[in-house]
Amino acid sequence: MTPQADLLITGSHLLPGARQSELREDHGIAVAGDTIIAIGPTADLVAAHPRAQRLHTAHGLIMPGLINTHTHAAMSCFRGIADDLPLMTWLQEYIFPLERRLTPEIVYHSTLLSLAEMIKSGTTSFCDMYLFAKDVARAAEQSGLRAWIGEVLYDFPSPSYGPVEAGHSYVEEMFRHYRHHPLVSVAVMPHSVYTCSPDLLRRLAETARRENAILHIHLSENAAEVATCRERYGATPTRHLDELGVLGDNTLAAHCVVLDEDDINLLAARRVKVCHCVESNLKLASGIAPVVRMIERGVTVSLGTDGSASNNNVDMFGEMNCVAKVHKVERMDPTAMNAESTLEAATAGGAKALGMEERIGSLAVGRKADVIVIDLDQPHLIPLYNVPSHLVYAARGGDVVHSVINGRIVMRDRRLLTIDEHEVMAAMRTISAGFRPLPGRR
Amino acid sequence: MTPQADLLITGSHLLPGARQSELREDHGIAVAGDTIIAIGPTADLVAAHPRAQRLHTAHGLIMPGLINTHTHAAMSCFRGIADDLPLMTWLQEYIFPLERRLTPEIVYHSTLLSLAEMIKSGTTSFCDMYLFAKDVARAAEQSGLRAWIGEVLYDFPSPSYGPVEAGHSYVEEMFRHYRHHPLVSVAVMPHSVYTCSPDLLRRLAETARRENAILHIHLSENAAEVATCRERYGATPTRHLDELGVLGDNTLAAHCVVLDEDDINLLAARRVKVCHCVESNLKLASGIAPVVRMIERGVTVSLGTDGSASNNNVDMFGEMNCVAKVHKVERMDPTAMNAESTLEAATAGGAKALGMEERIGSLAVGRKADVIVIDLDQPHLIPLYNVPSHLVYAARGGDVVHSVINGRIVMRDRRLLTIDEHEVMAAMRTISAGFRPLPGRR
Ligand SMILES: [Zn+2]
Ligand SMILES: [Zn+2]
Repeated sequence: MTPQADLLITGSHLLPGARQSELREDHGIAVAGDTIIAIGPTADLVAAHPRAQRLHTAHGLIMPGLINTHTHAAMSCFRGIADDLPLMTWLQEYIFPLERRLTPEIVYHSTLLSLAEMIKSGTTSFCDMYLFAKDVARAAEQSGLRAWIGEVLYDFPSPSYGPVEAGHSYVEEMFRHYRHHPLVSVAVMPHSVYTCSPDLLRRLAETARRENAILHIHLSENAAEVATCRERYGATPTRHLDELGVLGDNTLAAHCVVLDEDDINLLAARRVKVCHCVESNLKLASGIAPVVRMIERGVTVSLGTDGSASNNNVDMFGEMNCVAKVHKVERMDPTAMNAESTLEAATAGGAKALGMEERIGSLAVGRKADVIVIDLDQPHLIPLYNVPSHLVYAARGGDVVHSVINGRIVMRDRRLLTIDEHEVMAAMRTISAGFRPLPGRR
Repeated sequence: MTPQADLLITGSHLLPGARQSELREDHGIAVAGDTIIAIGPTADLVAAHPRAQRLHTAHGLIMPGLINTHTHAAMSCFRGIADDLPLMTWLQEYIFPLERRLTPEIVYHSTLLSLAEMIKSGTTSFCDMYLFAKDVARAAEQSGLRAWIGEVLYDFPSPSYGPVEAGHSYVEEMFRHYRHHPLVSVAVMPHSVYTCSPDLLRRLAETARRENAILHIHLSENAAEVATCRERYGATPTRHLDELGVLGDNTLAAHCVVLDEDDINLLAARRVKVCHCVESNLKLASGIAPVVRMIERGVTVSLGTDGSASNNNVDMFGEMNCVAKVHKVERMDPTAMNAESTLEAATAGGAKALGMEERIGSLAVGRKADVIVIDLDQPHLIPLYNVPSHLVYAARGGDVVHSVINGRIVMRDRRLLTIDEHEVMAAMRTISAGFRPLPGRR
């Protein structure tokens, strides 16, 4: 006997993966608990599961939720506070002084605001590195998003946990607390090679191995980082991490902008996963990551928005749009990073980066029900010749109407069901008023 | 005695130009007929104009409408039909064969679809180059948008007017018909230096002078165009046009990607206006136009989306977002094309490009009432430290809630008042079905 579904998600089109050839019309998916139990023609599903709740959209495209593998969600409180500045001015005169004013409550509310924005723009999973990670996790639990969360660690004292030794305990506590959580996973997050000593990096790699966890780090973000690392350790950041035994298939490296051929080959050999943050890299004038070459060498590439202080949003549709275009001009090749490759990076690539390729990133029986629905009945999404093209080149985050994560409806008709949007916006208005007068301004 | 306003547009914030320093809170604008007659605190306006219609938005940002100075609106019917292809394959196997199937009715409906999309994403003025321009103008008249429209001319026979001599008559007729139209202006539009003979270019420059009209042309879009022009005429496209006497302050040149220093100086000296189409240039791997250098030399730079076959939308918010980021990495300078410069290009720059700097592109008493309102009460637009930053780095086309053009409300609460959106989407579904099977596909 077929198990009964709790929920049927149906629409005019279903795209289970990133390829136009997989597109089905008038199909839907049946969900029981947190899992997809059937995919098929709408009429068949309705007949087989008469008591299931219906989530139907006449001109709806059903697709996998997007996966944002690098963000600092709480930085939404700094959105637009300082733009168009040289990197060191931005960091030293604005971001660092402001981060010293953060509290657990500010991080909780600011994270929640970003998570509201994520759900409203189609993201169902995210990987977050920041201060006060327990409060990030508290917001994630409330939101219903699938999350990988880590406290950022570095050599100097943190506004969150204080001295680095306390940081290790903080991380251990998080691992204990979330060991069996269905949606929140804890990850190990050294900030970078220029803020973490070799000892700290080695110790955290060991923690990640012991906990069977993702190790997430900023890597080779810009030329200054590479120069500093060469000077200190006589190696590129990638080779430095490899010499320390840090690189492995559980390593998720954000940025990877400035890489030489040896670095790329090493990332491929160690099966490191890369998170490409194109909008942040452009905005901070860091450069353009050699994503096409990495993919050619077999490196898994996923996409991330970075924080809203350097983007200035967490909209993965905007990210895809930019990725597909920038690499074409960087290579002077209009076939580079086509729509399907780009969509794949934002879905299956993200799943692989987080070690979840068997469970999320595409829609199939037995996988987790992380599903979004796009409203195709809009002037900018008509006509419809090719769905991946539309998702990458024409759609916007605001076109997402419903979101289901782990079988639970978290947004319906653009109304959030897990977050009180107006309450979180009101909280943010108060928080931002507290940052005035802004630092660095004359 | 103060004249009475017909309409008061009020909100929480008013940004009359592109600078944060101009931002006013709880201000609004009073409109009589097609013109702004007052700008001031909401309470004062309401007291002075008690009988005026109110368009109030609690968390609304009132700002100038965006100006799209280069598009082919009717190409919406080819949106997503062929992407990620080498330029010549795209043109010869898809676009040219498809354009031979165009009819006046297809162009009318396809243009109307793009105009619906433009209004819904904040554009209030556009400049359009295409075939069957009379039908483009028919759609523009219906939409209520402010439009500059021209029939594209070249040496070979056109699917629209036939032989080139008939093209000249077609253009003359359009000038006669629209001479006194409040919103539709006719412009002279030779396609490019590689499709138009020197004689045709000279003759069209003369037409533009006689009619006191804009001359709009594609210029130096990519390296192939420059190579062809050098081979045929021994000059870059810019110098070739100058030798023919075409360049002047009524010239609006789209793209200008491949320019040398002499070209830039010549554009500046002749007071040519440039339309920068960054998304199209990236997607077709044409290159990145030297916009920062042009602005340094005093060249007026405006923004355009190009057609939806190479973008794939007409959303000027997406265009601004890309402009502000791409030039930072192209120059490796995070201060390049800051938010205010980018917003200025999309508003006052567009007005200047179209010879309307005294009447549109910013909000001031005596100017035309081309006004849009953005809903700031959304997670991705909170907190609010800097409005130009939000408009360029965080907002999306879908955040526009109302649009007023020439004093007339054309969209209210995202409902179009001049275009039946569902009718035009249904028409496009029929048109696109007629293009199947798609050309070039195996
Ligand atoms: Zn980061
Ligand atoms: Zn064009």
